[in-house]
Amino acid sequence: MTVFPEDYLTENAFLGGALRLLQPKDGYRAGIDPVLLAAACPAKAGDTVLDLGCGGGIAGLCLARRVPGIDLTGVELQPAYADLARRNANLNAIPATIVEADLRDLPAALRQRQFTHVIANPPYFERSKTTPSTNPGRATARSGEATLADWIDTAARRLAPRGALTLIQKPDRLPQILAALEGRLGSMQIAPLAPRAGRDPNLVLVRAVKDGRAPLRLAAPLPLHDGPEHLSDTDDYTQTISKVLRKTAPLPLWN
Amino acid sequence: MTVFPEDYLTENAFLGGALRLLQPKDGYRAGIDPVLLAAACPAKAGDTVLDLGCGGGIAGLCLARRVPGIDLTGVELQPAYADLARRNANLNAIPATIVEADLRDLPAALRQRQFTHVIANPPYFERSKTTPSTNPGRATARSGEATLADWIDTAARRLAPRGALTLIQKPDRLPQILAALEGRLGSMQIAPLAPRAGRDPNLVLVRAVKDGRAPLRLAAPLPLHDGPEHLSDTDDYTQTISKVLRKTAPLPLWN
Repeated sequence: MTVFPEDYLTENAFLGGALRLLQPKDGYRAGIDPVLLAAACPAKAGDTVLDLGCGGGIAGLCLARRVPGIDLTGVELQPAYADLARRNANLNAIPATIVEADLRDLPAALRQRQFTHVIANPPYFERSKTTPSTNPGRATARSGEATLADWIDTAARRLAPRGALTLIQKPDRLPQILAALEGRLGSMQIAPLAPRAGRDPNLVLVRAVKDGRAPLRLAAPLPLHDGPEHLSDTDDYTQTISKVLRKTAPLPLWN
Repeated sequence: MTVFPEDYLTENAFLGGALRLLQPKDGYRAGIDPVLLAAACPAKAGDTVLDLGCGGGIAGLCLARRVPGIDLTGVELQPAYADLARRNANLNAIPATIVEADLRDLPAALRQRQFTHVIANPPYFERSKTTPSTNPGRATARSGEATLADWIDTAARRLAPRGALTLIQKPDRLPQILAALEGRLGSMQIAPLAPRAGRDPNLVLVRAVKDGRAPLRLAAPLPLHDGPEHLSDTDDYTQTISKVLRKTAPLPLWN
């Protein structure tokens, strides 16, 4: 399908209601990961931001809501999601250019641009290693054919000097991520996110800077939830995470 | 020099006195890192263990003291340290074969062997990036000419099927480590060690298995010291670390 039928969509509140986003009922639906990604990007007003593989636009639009005045571009392979990202930008009156393209083969107009920031939430599973979903939209969103090396190659090419890539991934993809970054971008920082203090991290935010020369920094994990286990029906996000999800706060990760 | 003069050495107690080791007064002296490396290696009696770049033999001998009955081989480039490793093995009545060789060019007898475990504490700094030490022994121990890729290549070649590499390094070397491991060894696990809870890790123990196919696991950091800062003259190692350093306990890291 090239656009989602109206009755296939639901409207959900993000950032404590500061953002309202249409999402397919049945396709790829965002968890908190793109919200955390946006909160980890230290963009400032006037910066150019490229949201690579933007899906319905969640990460870029969360960032634009927190930092008014960014110049936002999204790239999305799937026509229905690119259309959804445009609709979501309009719904929130956020200026954004959404380009329908394969990130491995960007149109010339994009290849001539450089960006202060690139943000990316690449699929967590490789197609060859997972059972294909019967829903083609979800299958591509979760296990797109571009490799992590493709994502990082495109990000590195589109970054301006001193520009920064921020991406969110599962820790088990660190070997591919670091191998692809090595020699391309520098001043890498890994900020692991753990479900709770003392538990193994299940997400990593990775930052790397074009022409950066600082040694890699591995940060202490940031816990998402308080306490040793989930004890009640109420959510138990830490204060830091709760401010990110509900009050448009940035994640204070990088130094 | 090919051996250290007697008055150039001091004898120090390790593992709560269970091991006594000669170390040069002025050359490379071990901190707790090789002791932690040994504690992280899950060798069992009867296993063959290769201590790559063994220096004065500390890691391998700590492991042999904890796990009697391992078949221990050390490889060391510098003649004076290889000699010291042999003397330290004799001093503690631990059977060990110490081979004086460049790990990039092992003798045929070693190239024909495979090991259940390889342990390694490669230099933390690259020669080209650091000011050379005026002490040549220390300079090589701290910034040897073999690259991390060389160390991992040699380890991978010498491991038996299902054999495991355990190494200790600074976190900023993770890109080179993971890039060198990728496609060679699998079931990688990264166990960061932090000075204190909540602080950025300053060491990583990395484990990888020959023919391993499990996804990479990033563990929660293990704190070395209790409390938020160093408050008194007494050491404040956590109970887990104190048992490793003084009671020959293993580090319970891998699952």
